[in-house]
Amino acid sequence: MTRNELFQNIQKKSSFLCVGLDTDLKKIPQHLLREDDPIFEFNKAIIDATANYCIAYKPNLAFYEYLGVKGWMALEKTVNYIRSNYPDQFLIADAKRGDIGNTSTMYAASFFESLNFDAVTVAPYMGEDSVKPFLGYDEKWVILLALTSNTGSSDFQFIKDTEGNHLFETVLEKSQKWGTEDQLMYVVGATQGKMFKDIRKKVPDSFLLVPGVGAQGGSLEEVCKYGMNKQCGLLVNSSRGIIYADTTKDFAKAAQSEAKKLQQQMEFLLNQYIK
Amino acid sequence: MTRNELFQNIQKKSSFLCVGLDTDLKKIPQHLLREDDPIFEFNKAIIDATANYCIAYKPNLAFYEYLGVKGWMALEKTVNYIRSNYPDQFLIADAKRGDIGNTSTMYAASFFESLNFDAVTVAPYMGEDSVKPFLGYDEKWVILLALTSNTGSSDFQFIKDTEGNHLFETVLEKSQKWGTEDQLMYVVGATQGKMFKDIRKKVPDSFLLVPGVGAQGGSLEEVCKYGMNKQCGLLVNSSRGIIYADTTKDFAKAAQSEAKKLQQQMEFLLNQYIK
Repeated sequence: MTRNELFQNIQKKSSFLCVGLDTDLKKIPQHLLREDDPIFEFNKAIIDATANYCIAYKPNLAFYEYLGVKGWMALEKTVNYIRSNYPDQFLIADAKRGDIGNTSTMYAASFFESLNFDAVTVAPYMGEDSVKPFLGYDEKWVILLALTSNTGSSDFQFIKDTEGNHLFETVLEKSQKWGTEDQLMYVVGATQGKMFKDIRKKVPDSFLLVPGVGAQGGSLEEVCKYGMNKQCGLLVNSSRGIIYADTTKDFAKAAQSEAKKLQQQMEFLLNQYIK
Repeated sequence: MTRNELFQNIQKKSSFLCVGLDTDLKKIPQHLLREDDPIFEFNKAIIDATANYCIAYKPNLAFYEYLGVKGWMALEKTVNYIRSNYPDQFLIADAKRGDIGNTSTMYAASFFESLNFDAVTVAPYMGEDSVKPFLGYDEKWVILLALTSNTGSSDFQFIKDTEGNHLFETVLEKSQKWGTEDQLMYVVGATQGKMFKDIRKKVPDSFLLVPGVGAQGGSLEEVCKYGMNKQCGLLVNSSRGIIYADTTKDFAKAAQSEAKKLQQQMEFLLNQYIK
């Protein structure tokens, strides 16, 4: 998917919501455990309920790997279900991979060829040759970790170098030589609030994937105020706040209601900052 | 496995060799493709041929994920085969994971519970709460990326902060507050040569996982000269140099010969620096 197509979807749906599929057998409604593939059944219901209100889905690989072979089957089925039924959804593998060149090449092939994702989250620590293999695909995206939403983000990402740049700023700067804003997005946590202002100076046109609204406490208003650009430039993710809004048989309805609520806030903010 | 047990295995076998199982359908002998599970058949033959000369195996997750469900089945079978037949081998999941706390908890459970690995490689970029969940298991290990073997290591790992510390040095220092040398190892590439001297000042007692000997061009002698400690403190990995030494029906014999060659060099170096 191109950057323009992504923005068109955002305009069409008045939403820049990404629904995180952190699907956990311990947290899904227990009646689903009687199904052959509870993870897929849960995802399917969540997807059908929320697809009108979001423009992206983001399965979190950890939750599928935990279940081994069954988890991978559920992941493949989920990806195929979205591709077949909601072809305009942007599909992100939240995998946070990154390794030496020949290994990153295999990871890229896993997510872009074996599975048909549009984007994969990548960790920058190993540098250029660990990221480049993911950039070798047309209309596929790397979403590079820049400034994450967790407390540990302060351990290394805020280290200042001798020229006064934080590590995450150096990541933003260097990586722009590896790929364009049509291939590279960045993870910036919603909990980082006003930092979005500085980040927009470094990457004015890039899309940012923003986790941390909801369960982690980030503010959607602040993210938009400081982070939105002319093409929106934001994919705001909510996982637990939507998919576990209710754990009874009404879970999909509750997820829909939460997704709709966020979409309506987003519509208001899009009108405020773009139109 | 404890640090003492690991050292005992090193002494018993006069080897600190780790064999990397980067098993790739395109590179294994083509007659194996007729088998039901070529990846597992290849691994089994490699393991049987090399187990006397190494003390650890390191499947590289990318190569298994690439094959989806079939890859995970081959991985599970490989882990179980080693556990059943060679219980004193140290088993490393080369996965380079790292995510916010609740997600790292799932990755830790994947590798330490669902699969029975002894250790997993972890990327430090997201800081303490992304690493901690992996440290909550008795006799299980985190192998944290410090100074990697690839050219991209120079992009961020050598960034100097205002106090003159390189990023990889800050990673070594900070992480020692998160866990002890009985839980934490570090990845340091063999290609980094003399840097081992500085690294040993920061982490005198920790084990280092050292990739980059062989295909990537690092020197075993240099690594030992500057990196070995009283309990050896080194796990030196070779992947392609061993497992693809030959691509005919004699592949296992060739792998054995390469592993044996490295073990003999290691025996010499152990005698030189420890006994």
